[in-house]
Amino acid sequence: MRTILCTLALLLGFSAPVRAIDIERVEPANWWVGMQHNRVELLVHGNGIATSTPRLSHHGVAIVDVQKTDNPNYLFVTVEIAADATPGNFDIAFVDAGKIVATHPWRLDAREPGSAQRRGFDAHDAIYLITPDRFANGDPSNDSVPGMREAANRASPNGRHGGDIAGIRKHLDYIAGMGFTQLWPTPFLENDQPEYSYHGYAITDLYKTDPRMGSNEDVRALSREAKSKGVGIVMDIVLNHIGSQHWWMRDLPAKDWINHGGRFAPTNHRRTTVQDPHAAPADREAFTDGWFVDAMPDLNQRNPHLARYLIQNTLWWIEYAGLSGIREDTFGYADADFLSAWAKAVLTEYPNFAMVGEEWSINPMVVAHWQRGKQNASGHVPHMPSMMDFPIHIALRTALVQPEGWDTGWVNLYEMLANDFVYPDPDALVVFAENHDTARLFAHLDGDLAAWKLGMAYLATVRGTPQFYYGSEVLLRGPKERNDGQLRADMPGGWAGDTANAFTGNGLSAAQRDAQAYTRALFDWRKRTPLLHTGKLTHFAPQDGVYVYFRHEGGRSVMVALNKNAKPTSLALDRFDAFLRGRTARDALSAKPVGMGRALELPAMSATLLEIE
Amino acid sequence: MRTILCTLALLLGFSAPVRAIDIERVEPANWWVGMQHNRVELLVHGNGIATSTPRLSHHGVAIVDVQKTDNPNYLFVTVEIAADATPGNFDIAFVDAGKIVATHPWRLDAREPGSAQRRGFDAHDAIYLITPDRFANGDPSNDSVPGMREAANRASPNGRHGGDIAGIRKHLDYIAGMGFTQLWPTPFLENDQPEYSYHGYAITDLYKTDPRMGSNEDVRALSREAKSKGVGIVMDIVLNHIGSQHWWMRDLPAKDWINHGGRFAPTNHRRTTVQDPHAAPADREAFTDGWFVDAMPDLNQRNPHLARYLIQNTLWWIEYAGLSGIREDTFGYADADFLSAWAKAVLTEYPNFAMVGEEWSINPMVVAHWQRGKQNASGHVPHMPSMMDFPIHIALRTALVQPEGWDTGWVNLYEMLANDFVYPDPDALVVFAENHDTARLFAHLDGDLAAWKLGMAYLATVRGTPQFYYGSEVLLRGPKERNDGQLRADMPGGWAGDTANAFTGNGLSAAQRDAQAYTRALFDWRKRTPLLHTGKLTHFAPQDGVYVYFRHEGGRSVMVALNKNAKPTSLALDRFDAFLRGRTARDALSAKPVGMGRALELPAMSATLLEIE
Repeated sequence: MRTILCTLALLLGFSAPVRAIDIERVEPANWWVGMQHNRVELLVHGNGIATSTPRLSHHGVAIVDVQKTDNPNYLFVTVEIAADATPGNFDIAFVDAGKIVATHPWRLDAREPGSAQRRGFDAHDAIYLITPDRFANGDPSNDSVPGMREAANRASPNGRHGGDIAGIRKHLDYIAGMGFTQLWPTPFLENDQPEYSYHGYAITDLYKTDPRMGSNEDVRALSREAKSKGVGIVMDIVLNHIGSQHWWMRDLPAKDWINHGGRFAPTNHRRTTVQDPHAAPADREAFTDGWFVDAMPDLNQRNPHLARYLIQNTLWWIEYAGLSGIREDTFGYADADFLSAWAKAVLTEYPNFAMVGEEWSINPMVVAHWQRGKQNASGHVPHMPSMMDFPIHIALRTALVQPEGWDTGWVNLYEMLANDFVYPDPDALVVFAENHDTARLFAHLDGDLAAWKLGMAYLATVRGTPQFYYGSEVLLRGPKERNDGQLRADMPGGWAGDTANAFTGNGLSAAQRDAQAYTRALFDWRKRTPLLHTGKLTHFAPQDGVYVYFRHEGGRSVMVALNKNAKPTSLALDRFDAFLRGRTARDALSAKPVGMGRALELPAMSATLLEIE
Repeated sequence: MRTILCTLALLLGFSAPVRAIDIERVEPANWWVGMQHNRVELLVHGNGIATSTPRLSHHGVAIVDVQKTDNPNYLFVTVEIAADATPGNFDIAFVDAGKIVATHPWRLDAREPGSAQRRGFDAHDAIYLITPDRFANGDPSNDSVPGMREAANRASPNGRHGGDIAGIRKHLDYIAGMGFTQLWPTPFLENDQPEYSYHGYAITDLYKTDPRMGSNEDVRALSREAKSKGVGIVMDIVLNHIGSQHWWMRDLPAKDWINHGGRFAPTNHRRTTVQDPHAAPADREAFTDGWFVDAMPDLNQRNPHLARYLIQNTLWWIEYAGLSGIREDTFGYADADFLSAWAKAVLTEYPNFAMVGEEWSINPMVVAHWQRGKQNASGHVPHMPSMMDFPIHIALRTALVQPEGWDTGWVNLYEMLANDFVYPDPDALVVFAENHDTARLFAHLDGDLAAWKLGMAYLATVRGTPQFYYGSEVLLRGPKERNDGQLRADMPGGWAGDTANAFTGNGLSAAQRDAQAYTRALFDWRKRTPLLHTGKLTHFAPQDGVYVYFRHEGGRSVMVALNKNAKPTSLALDRFDAFLRGRTARDALSAKPVGMGRALELPAMSATLLEIE
């Protein structure tokens, strides 16, 4: 080390340092030439580094700003990267009292062609959501990693089961073959927590894949392979909090880096305070500044260095891993101004990119607040292209279990969809029947396979981008009341020795094979049916247990008739004359012609899916 | 008649008619000089009148347009009234083939001074809603009127009980003394229906008070007397439909006067279709064009003559009866463009007037669609200053009966009020716990007087204009499930011989006296407390069964603490420091000082109302 420092010192014209500083981190460790974001603020962490001055010499790169915080172990160094800068490695030196006290390597990379213009997911896509620890164990050698706080324990529902990036890579053909074109793995970044770390939302290093999942290079390989099979990668990003074992927590970059001074104070979860004109300021603050749990320190994104760090981290992963989208966790809990700046920065860099936020509310006004284009009374200017459609999620689940009546059953779904006027772009929402935080639909329906199929048919045909949760195609059920560890059960066949195998079909029950075939048929049909991506949706008020809607464009349409009755139902067709008169129909999944007289016979508890020409 | 015609004919220079036409109606029968609306379209009804030409001679009045419909018995004659026209009576003559076939008297009146600038009700007010047939029988001689289809039958819950305008006039001091400053009687216009006509919503003559209620002049006298006691009159107007015995139904002014060609076809009540971007056009049409019931033909306000008739009818009543507000029935069921034009016309004439619409939905987005200033995705430009706050109504009733929990009980109310950002002007809404169409709150609460007081305290202190339903102050209860006839029970003391009398207090139970005294204390306090009219509202997320909010302005505030716990509760005050620190408190109703330490002791199931200075 001393030798290198001396060499660099000679080059830069300084004498060798008296006292060397260990640079523990420089983040990001590299950047790319030709980004819109070409002023990169590097977080430099090293004992006493704040008194030094950074120096570098590389064509097209210049240090344009250096800032300190109240912690002498951090320096924030802004480098400007010229459009003609030369990709390659170089060192940054840190000089104190005329002497180099440390150097650290840094790198400029060339971008992939077309990177800035990449298209994010949209309604042409269908998303397969997986919990990586529970999907497939492709590399048993990394199940436990020496030095990491939690070892594998497949016997515990809340333990780490060994699923990894290698496991996902093994089954990309399966995912693509089911009709899915996007893969959303819950977070795969390092969660070096002492326990309950498998879920990935307590991140301890924002630039590093958890070694029990694989390496950053494995993630990049996954993305490349998936893309070659027509599947994009949607990364799950967490802006609101980190894990309590994040290295920051041992030496906070600034006193205000973590809300409530780094000490646990719970959020009140009162998300309505964000827009509520009557909300007490203290309640509003408690919502955004409070922590989820004491294992998840809540980030204060009002600190401008932290804000830049998070924005750059997102850009870094998009560029590094070739992402096609981002799912942002616990959306409204972060600082609203920061959320706006973050999303805007990402879209400035990647104008056609996709990002979807999680705002867990049944109130469409609460969700719509965050979507790009929404004019808000709160003054908030949002930039998110998409949000998770929790209102439809909840209405769908209610509709499927509630007995039919004038204002019950399907009407929940009909009236919720009617609220679409509140969104600037309802077609950009992501619809789902279940996710990694809810009881699976099959459990919610008490194992009623016919009702489950109704739900899936809705998901595949309603406006927006559908999101499916791994394993439901083979009827993973889990508990009816929320129990995360059990709901995120291992995918059959993901582990050597599994008796049933969802990927090969071996050992599946008849019901499992039926559900899997139905899922595949639905999403394969959806994939090749543009009407289901961009066709206008027109629905009819539910009557007598039947909910009918059309996706249509230019005289062609898909007719969806959802019959929740326990017996076959004759559907009079005169109401739908505008879509049906003089046209022919065929069953969408079997392609068989269907005669359309004055009435259509709907089998009990079933979705009738017709292509009308 | 022949003589008069001859005299007029001589004056106008025509020869006497060969064939006289009986003019059955000219509506309106008069107008005023100096209205913004100075081009008045008169509906003229008379057998074969359409072939004639109207003539008149009066200073400042000219016929500027004459239009016919597909019915030869109608003529629509537009008269223009100059600003300097002379008030007085004159005749309109109808000339056919050079001969006068009919004449009809008409009149121009002078306006009351300040009429155009009248102030409508607002949050300074509290509204007392009554069903006139059930409030007080001031004139038993008009209970049954010869020639009218339904006679009085007090024994029947759905019959006419004899309440009338005279009865209301007798009890204006009572109403004013309770703290109310506005009186909303449900419709008092003629309902000459064969049965179930007491409620007033099946109007058979839009220009005539039902003789069993009194005369138009009685209404005017009521308004004058009420005003002298500080009480304004809010008239209940019905634009959507008429009664099946309306005289129009015997000779429709045009084929398209009534929706569905004058034949009964029910509305689907699917109010979401108005804004739903996905609604099937047929469903949308079924909503607005369908009839409520076959006794209420649904008006087609797209007919421009009908639209003008309805607008003029409203202006006429405001000017004639000196109204301070309008409540419009079944708001969204009428044609949206017409509703907009109607409200705009009224506000053009009376810029400071108040109008409140009934949109019976728990969805604030559905209600907000109609409020003036709302930017609608539907393109609809609304002009209503106020809407009934059904979302808060329903949330309040849920909050009062649902056990407290993280997302149950008071939270319903807290989160509903949080939606206020959706309204252009939430302070202009009318809030209520019950009305003539809902179970009374006391019934809804299974007779729990303490819970009822909580609801009343909320009503008196939340933003907006509160509306109270007659008789609830003496605990009229009625059934828990909707039953209109029983819920609209007779006010005790309104009829000679009543054993109990709400007006004098005689014969009331202790609970009735308690409820009445509480109501009077609440609304009297509200009346003299500007903070409750215009103070900003700030509320705190409910905790442990207690919901706290403040109405505040310039350092002074009213603190409302609603305790739903069945036992006394100690409320820690540190959360409310911003409103309480260094200030003193007194009980709002008793005016006694209240010590404010670290905690406030709240009695079980009660509202604590404090004035903080």
